[in-house]
Parts: sequence; structure tokens; C-alpha cells
Amino acid sequence: MPESPIRKLVPYAEAAKKRGVNVFHLNIGQPDIKSPQKALDAIRNIDLEVVEYSLSGGVTSYREKLAKYYQNIGLEISADNVMITTGGSEALLFGFMSCLDPGDEVIVTEPFYANYNGFATAAGVKVVPIVSRIDSGFALPDLSKIEDQINDRTKAILVCNPGNPTGYLYTDQEIQKIAEFAINYDLFVFADEVYREFCYDGREHKSIMSVKGLEEHAIMIDSVSKRYSMCGARIGSVVTKNQTVMDTMMKFAQARLSPPTFGQIAGEAALDTGQEYFDEVTEEYTHRRNLMVNALNEIPGVMCPMPMGAFYCVAALPIEDAEDFCRWMLESFEHEGSTVMLAPANGFYSKPDLGKNQVRLAYVLNVEDLKKSLICLSLGLEAYKEQLTLKAETV
Amino acid sequence: MPESPIRKLVPYAEAAKKRGVNVFHLNIGQPDIKSPQKALDAIRNIDLEVVEYSLSGGVTSYREKLAKYYQNIGLEISADNVMITTGGSEALLFGFMSCLDPGDEVIVTEPFYANYNGFATAAGVKVVPIVSRIDSGFALPDLSKIEDQINDRTKAILVCNPGNPTGYLYTDQEIQKIAEFAINYDLFVFADEVYREFCYDGREHKSIMSVKGLEEHAIMIDSVSKRYSMCGARIGSVVTKNQTVMDTMMKFAQARLSPPTFGQIAGEAALDTGQEYFDEVTEEYTHRRNLMVNALNEIPGVMCPMPMGAFYCVAALPIEDAEDFCRWMLESFEHEGSTVMLAPANGFYSKPDLGKNQVRLAYVLNVEDLKKSLICLSLGLEAYKEQLTLKAETV
Repeated sequence: MPESPIRKLVPYAEAAKKRGVNVFHLNIGQPDIKSPQKALDAIRNIDLEVVEYSLSGGVTSYREKLAKYYQNIGLEISADNVMITTGGSEALLFGFMSCLDPGDEVIVTEPFYANYNGFATAAGVKVVPIVSRIDSGFALPDLSKIEDQINDRTKAILVCNPGNPTGYLYTDQEIQKIAEFAINYDLFVFADEVYREFCYDGREHKSIMSVKGLEEHAIMIDSVSKRYSMCGARIGSVVTKNQTVMDTMMKFAQARLSPPTFGQIAGEAALDTGQEYFDEVTEEYTHRRNLMVNALNEIPGVMCPMPMGAFYCVAALPIEDAEDFCRWMLESFEHEGSTVMLAPANGFYSKPDLGKNQVRLAYVLNVEDLKKSLICLSLGLEAYKEQLTLKAETV
Repeated sequence: MPESPIRKLVPYAEAAKKRGVNVFHLNIGQPDIKSPQKALDAIRNIDLEVVEYSLSGGVTSYREKLAKYYQNIGLEISADNVMITTGGSEALLFGFMSCLDPGDEVIVTEPFYANYNGFATAAGVKVVPIVSRIDSGFALPDLSKIEDQINDRTKAILVCNPGNPTGYLYTDQEIQKIAEFAINYDLFVFADEVYREFCYDGREHKSIMSVKGLEEHAIMIDSVSKRYSMCGARIGSVVTKNQTVMDTMMKFAQARLSPPTFGQIAGEAALDTGQEYFDEVTEEYTHRRNLMVNALNEIPGVMCPMPMGAFYCVAALPIEDAEDFCRWMLESFEHEGSTVMLAPANGFYSKPDLGKNQVRLAYVLNVEDLKKSLICLSLGLEAYKEQLTLKAETV
């Protein structure tokens, strides 16, 4: 497994901290939002004497309650369509391993969540990327462009909606296009919908599970990590009406015995969280998003499409090599004792030259820190370009 | 993935329960022992507002404390040698994926824990079994027997000590033999030592990590599941002094983000559990073991070696097809409203004809239930043989 550009930066961030520099982490998707009180209370009031294995597919009452949650957001999903997993990671891994054979191919719109590569490697599956472009705001690329790459081994298409790293939210028409494409070529559709609750400006999320006629194709990946700010619970779910896929996934589930019991207790209790929690969170994220994206676009030469979902954005910087810039920020720059850690976007593309001047930023810091980090970034960009010019002149 | 003989029985057990029959579960390794109070208290007193990802390799304080636990049992292990995983399952999977390439071979003494097959399949690795025999009490087989099967792809040997399903505890000499064999053929040694605390009759456990000269070869698999009766916490660890292996495992760890946060809190607190907890548990298991194994050997035609560790035993029954018998017990037998579920031992062998008349029994029920279940089993065996005779006469 190759090391991701983000992980390569970690030692530089650690070194910066050792020098006493404060590092604003815009590089990670760990929200600072509080986990729901009901989930934490359930853990504190836990009534267990033996921390037993749960059923491999997850605690029955949790699966049933999760099905009701899906029904409440308009999806016709029963508990039998739901399997609880150890995080969304495992959900996607089980999906890959159950639907695809080693050597099969999965189409993925890029830039994409870097760990998809890891799951593909683990399942022996080849990722076939189709590029969505920053100048179209990362809208769904023209799928006809990829038709000539479809062959016997092409078995699935994977989308993340709303998108990590782009924050792009697919329109109803785009979801329909994906569905038609999948039916046309008899592909599975994996839809990573873990950011479903985070849609902005009154936009609504269109789930792959809501598309009529796609029942045998659609596999939804879900997780409590982002929705309830409980990344550490390691609880996700995989949802499909395709019984054959569900049966195969169950074998993988049994092989790893069971998902974590404590996390399932927290996840089940979290489902009682009221809408006001999400209203507050969405308001907070909208505020942060506007602040960040507007500030970014005010920096000369920076271009950042306004994301409509999740809590990330991808920005093009007026430099050549974002990875070099990100490292330089950690190694050589500070402003008022602070610097900023960003995720070089090349880690989200399949080819190293794509997105080379782009970075992903997560707006998971509070507004005050966000403001400071954006000033820091703006000054850092200036200083970086300056030292590049100086270097060039010296040579 | 083929369905295991144990899992095939589950619907029969469910049907029996629906008919109102009480099923004594001697088939599973879910202990009824209480989890340590300190672990449960730590969960109840949890002081978190955001359930964040932990570090991919596990919470630092937990890794350090776990290293101290290993030091206390005489193993020279530092926190750097320890990675926290999502159960022992993931520990072995990471070990396989980091040490072996697809197509490589791993020698496994059989009968072996059925899920090893699943992890081997997931890693694309071929299991090369070497049979240990019930009439030698499942002692280490003569490793020279397998020397002609060693080839370029043979990369590791895997042992479970004390053993699931056999309960066999390797002697110091046997561990030494395994070590010499591994050094001689330059193999990794995976040692699943999750039952370490459960050794009986004053016998001591010899860890693979204590063998001098084996530092670059040894990879220990560990877990809180059995030790602290916390199977549902899904917390394990993988321990090695081989830095290259550790570095590779870290990449897999990063791809799945982090092990469960709640489980790590419970696991760390569990390390404060006093020796009296284990003394009590060991006394209880010794009592159950003696009761079960003696009762089994009193049944005409049954042979069961006395296990020296873990909480399983494998017994040969005076019948031809244990899988058929186990199903019959669930489908057609009851005594005083109860029947017994056993694990057909063929699921622990690589070839279906091996161990065909053997079953695995876990002594994880309380003494009263254990007594009732053994009477039930004894009567069931008689009745099963009788109806077979009747059937034969009718034909």
C-alpha cells in the first residue's frame, strides 16, 4: 500500500508541534461537534454484566430502529435490508468483497475519498476513475466518456454523496443518470451517503435507495461517525434490497464475529436525537462553510467552488505543487505562533498529476480558529510564493 | 466463502427454540463469566463529549499499559511493539496481509479455529494443514512430516496456544521446536495466545514472544474478548518486534482509521483487574472442565483428552457423522424440555472427512446447566444410535 500524501505530512505536523507551533488541522474530517447527549447517556447508563458478542449482522433492535430512521427520511427499507458494520469502512469493504471478484473493476468519480483505494486493494478490485472537474464545481462528469472503458470486468460504480473531498451534492437528475447508467450496463451502485444530514441552502439529499427499479443494484454505505460526531464508535451500516448480496455479506460478517457492542448501544440511542441537533449542526456548518469558502475565494488566485454538502471543500491554489506547499507550511511557516495543516488533493486522485495545485479543507474547527487559520493560510501562501521567487533568483 | 458446519446448524437451533425447546449452547466460545467491574465502571464513568477517532494504532496510554501487562508476565515488550486492533480477528488479518503475499502459504496445526480460513481467504493465502491427533491429546505433530511440502511460497506457521478447539497447551519443548522450525525455514510464527490466562493444573503458558532469537519471526495475536469476557468490545492487539512488519501493519490500520474508542477505554481499565479475578475464573473453569471431560469419558464409546488450557475440548463420539448427530439433536431430540447444541469438529479441519466423528464443546455454562446438558447429551447419543439401528432395520 502506498503512503498517502496526507499521512506523509504527519511527521512534519508532529515536528511543528514539538517546536511549540500551534497547528490548525484543516486536513482531517474529525468534527469538533459534540456527540448527542442521548448516545453518551446510553453509554454511561450501560446495563451489562457481560460484554458479549452481538449478532454478526448487528443488534436486532438497533437494525429495526435504523430501518425506521430510513423510513422517516422517505426510504422504503426494512430491518432485513440493514447490516450493522464496524464503521462505514467495513460496510464498503463487505460490499466490495460480496459484489466483486478479484480483478473486477469499479468506476469511481474522482477526486474520491483516499481510503477507497485501500478497500479496493483489500478486495483485489481495480478502480477506474472518471474525473469531475473543479471548474464545473465537481458536478457529475459525463458518464458516456467512460463507456469505451467498460468491459466484462466492470461490475460497479461508486459515488460519495455528498462528496468527500468535494462537498458536491448530486442533483436528482444526476442520481437518475447514475441509475440509468448502472441499469444499462448491469452494474452495482455503491453510494457512500454518510454525510446525508449535511446539506446546505435548503437543498435535499437524494438517496440511491430512493430510485425505483434500482433495488437489485443499489448498495448504500452509512455510518454514525459524521452524522453524530461519533467517529470513534466505529459503527456503520450497509443497506441493500439485493438478498443475494446481503447473504454473501453475512458470511463476511460472521467471519469477523460481530460489530462493537458499546458502539451499537451508542448508535441505537443516537437515533433518538431530535431534529434540533441537526438544525444546530447544519447552521453551524453553513456558517463555517460560508466563512471558509468566501475567505478562500478572496485570496488572490485561489478558486474554491461552494460545496452544498458534507464539511469539506476543494480549492485550487495559485501554486504548482500543493503537496510541497503543505509540507512547507508545517516546516517553515508560522504566523503568531500558528500554522495550518491541509490535505494535498493529489491524494484524492488516481494519478499524481491530477489536482496537483488543489487542497482539501475540512471546516470542522470553530469559527474563531477557522478565521485565524484562514489568515494564516493567506499569509503562508504569500510567503511561500515569495521564497520560491527568491530561490529561483538565487539559482 | 463456504458456510461452516456450525453456522449451518443455527437455523435448526432457532427452530428448536421456536418449538419451546431449551437449547444448551456448548457450541460457542461466549463465556458467561462477568466482565471485570473496573472495565464496566470505566465505561459508565466515561468522560467524553466527542467520540473521536483514536490513533490508528490505538490509544497511546492503552498501548503503554498493555506493554506493562506483558512485561509483568515476563515478556520484554515495549509500547512500540504493540498495535491495538478491532478484535483478535483484525490482528491476525493485519498480520497475514503484512507478512504474506496472495498465493503464499501458511502452515497451520489442525484442528484449528475455523475463522482462520476466513482470514486466509481474505488475505489470499493458502492454508497448509498439519494434523494433530486426538489419540495423542492433540500434541504438536511431528513437524518433519511437513518438510516435503515446504516451498518458495511457504512463509509462516500459525499456532493457537492454548488451542481453540482442542484446549491443548504447548509445552516449552514444543514451543522451542516450533521456533527452531521457523528459524530453520525462515518462517514467520503467528501465535494466537488469546487464552493465555486459562491454563490449568498449575501449568504455565509459554509465549512465542519469550523465545530468544525469534524476535524477527514472532507475531503474537491477543484480545480482551476471552481474558476479560468482553467479546463484544472488539478489542485485540498484535505484538511484534519486527519493525518492518509493524510499519506495514500500520498502513492497514490507517486504512480502517481507528479501533473502537469505547472498547479501548474498557480494555485499558480492564488491565487494572486484580489477579483474584483470574484466580476465581480459573478455578471455575477448572471445575467445569473436570466435570465435563470426566462426564464425557464416562459415556460409553466417548473419548475426550483432558485439555490443559482455554475452555474447549474436542471429543470423539461413538457415531460416524457428528454433523448429522448435532443436527438431529436440535431437530429430533429433547430431554426434560432441553437439548444440546454442539460444534461438529469437521469445521475445524481442512478436509471434511477429518474429525468426522468429533465435536467441540465449550465449558462456558454454569455447573448446573453443564450437568444437565451432559445428561441430555448422553441420552441423546443413545437415542440417536437407537433410531439409526431402527432405520437400518427398516431399510
